[in-house]
Amino acid sequence: SVDTTPIRATLFPGDGIGPEIAESVKKVFTEADVHIDWEEHYVGTEIDPRTQSFLTWESLESVRRNKIGLKGPMATPIGKGHRSLNLTLRKELNLYANVRPCYSLPGYKTRYDNVDLVTIRENTEGEYSGLEHQVVRGVVESLKIITRQASLRVAEYAFHYAKAHGRERVSAIHKANIMQKTDGLFLKCCREVAEKYPEIKYEEVVIDNCCMMLVKNPALFDVLVMPNLYGDIISDLCAGLIGGLGLTPSCNIGEGGIALAEAVHGSAPDIAGKNMANPTALLLSAVTMLRHLELHDKADRIQDAILKTIADGKYRTADLGGSSTTTDFTKAICDHL
Amino acid sequence: SVDTTPIRATLFPGDGIGPEIAESVKKVFTEADVHIDWEEHYVGTEIDPRTQSFLTWESLESVRRNKIGLKGPMATPIGKGHRSLNLTLRKELNLYANVRPCYSLPGYKTRYDNVDLVTIRENTEGEYSGLEHQVVRGVVESLKIITRQASLRVAEYAFHYAKAHGRERVSAIHKANIMQKTDGLFLKCCREVAEKYPEIKYEEVVIDNCCMMLVKNPALFDVLVMPNLYGDIISDLCAGLIGGLGLTPSCNIGEGGIALAEAVHGSAPDIAGKNMANPTALLLSAVTMLRHLELHDKADRIQDAILKTIADGKYRTADLGGSSTTTDFTKAICDHL
Ligand SMILES: CC(C)[C@H](C(=O)O)[C@@H](O)C(=O)O
Ligand SMILES: CC(C)[C@H](C(=O)O)[C@@H](O)C(=O)O
Repeated sequence: SVDTTPIRATLFPGDGIGPEIAESVKKVFTEADVHIDWEEHYVGTEIDPRTQSFLTWESLESVRRNKIGLKGPMATPIGKGHRSLNLTLRKELNLYANVRPCYSLPGYKTRYDNVDLVTIRENTEGEYSGLEHQVVRGVVESLKIITRQASLRVAEYAFHYAKAHGRERVSAIHKANIMQKTDGLFLKCCREVAEKYPEIKYEEVVIDNCCMMLVKNPALFDVLVMPNLYGDIISDLCAGLIGGLGLTPSCNIGEGGIALAEAVHGSAPDIAGKNMANPTALLLSAVTMLRHLELHDKADRIQDAILKTIADGKYRTADLGGSSTTTDFTKAICDHL
Repeated sequence: SVDTTPIRATLFPGDGIGPEIAESVKKVFTEADVHIDWEEHYVGTEIDPRTQSFLTWESLESVRRNKIGLKGPMATPIGKGHRSLNLTLRKELNLYANVRPCYSLPGYKTRYDNVDLVTIRENTEGEYSGLEHQVVRGVVESLKIITRQASLRVAEYAFHYAKAHGRERVSAIHKANIMQKTDGLFLKCCREVAEKYPEIKYEEVVIDNCCMMLVKNPALFDVLVMPNLYGDIISDLCAGLIGGLGLTPSCNIGEGGIALAEAVHGSAPDIAGKNMANPTALLLSAVTMLRHLELHDKADRIQDAILKTIADGKYRTADLGGSSTTTDFTKAICDHL
């Protein structure tokens, strides 16, 4: 007998186009017989003192309990006295690794047709420490913090991921020729972990050279692991190679087995509510969520349907040069299932 | 009557392929009737205590005196107790801005044919402070330093450059949404300078977004100015767009009107002495040196001859897929003059 107990998962539809693209995920999942009991949480309208942000405590508790979630775009409200929504989520849920599979979409032409890599970004420390101060007038400094614990953790995740996904190589990206102590520690941790995975090739690439190689020939890379800021930069660069943030899935891995998949593009308030948004990034993120749950058959089926719909080219949203509505594009995916 | 007093300039031929490509510059300059009295300086074989590096004190004095120089690739000798040659030059000569014009070369096909931008990198501080320490076992930090003085200086140079070269826009690249104090100060300085140049458009672009835009459509950019590490990353990324470091000129601007043009590629010891090296980056760097001396006619003439030779495609060195020798390629340029 088939287990039809639904999986409980947290859903942050987010702002702007968020609710529309979240609707698309629900429809596609239902069509694919993936039973999820979504616990929906919206960003609050007041600062919750327990989170120091507009995120409610209940919403964070929901992710902690379910250990799995999906998040649409969230625009941080303007104003002082609170933290960015994304940074709060990373901090409160200890989302230590941001994982972005990035591959050329068949049928959607960019300058590159040979991208197939995964960026794994340390997501909790480095240049994002928030520690900054003025030394004297006109002289400010900020601290980049690298710890052995966080570096080992993300390196472990990268090699584990490479092995689980049949990937051949992990490249650690760094600038240890300049930041010998911080990036040096990061590399030392990567090397330690690499020794435990003799079947995975390991290399180290300086970030400036890495960016040059990526634009010349992205096929040179497989899995990339790196400190926070380099990951921020390189994951967006890679997204650009295949068409942009509207097409790239993302998943955040937290302590205790938490996975929060997320569309990393903006909330596009200008087209919100107009049935024009492209749900691809959120859909593909939802697929990474299924993979995290080891529902690979379902994940494959849904991913295939999404890629076929894009390859087909008959239904494309405005951002990809088409004129389909979100609902028609979603329906086309359902038809492909 | 024409002034034929030669200009005295310092020449660091450098290591590996350095001497061969420096020879090419001398030939082309002679052919173009550009009279330079080159003061040649090689990297020493022992550490000079006055520079704490293998660079001799005399060579630095030569640049300070001539205020103009050209530098080939220099491999920093392995070992402890001395500083990298490039970093020593930046520090000792206060080379505060690294300027890299980056444009698609007609006839040399890459994925991009619409690149025409200039990256201007702050070259003395930021993440390159060298200040790092271990806080406790397993926790290290490095300091990024941003000062008002250095930020204003490089911003002034960027706007001055934009105006002098008929460029329309300056984009300041930053991550001030995360590093509010350091990158915030950098932006504040750029804004101050921007106000003095109402004829030049000014915008601010977050580095991750900038890298995505660069790979999607580099034509969106004109002059980019940024702190040290972002400049390191983005200038190499841009070089990748047009074919790599073997094709991109670079010039360092120092206090007191110093300009040290430099080929930023490696010294390629594997092909050194084999008459196989591509002198393009050093030649185009030498052209930026002439522009700094406001010898624009000569600069235009030499640049044209280089670009025509590459466009022609008859003489290309191995790195560009051809089989010409350095001397034949150089001769072809001379023939185009
Ligand atoms: C919005 C910003 C703070 C964030 C970051 O820098 O991490 C974004 O660029 C991202 O990659 O999620
Ligand atoms: C070799 C290295 C120290 C140097 C830098 O990071 O500045 C290089 O990448 C450059 O851009 O000149």
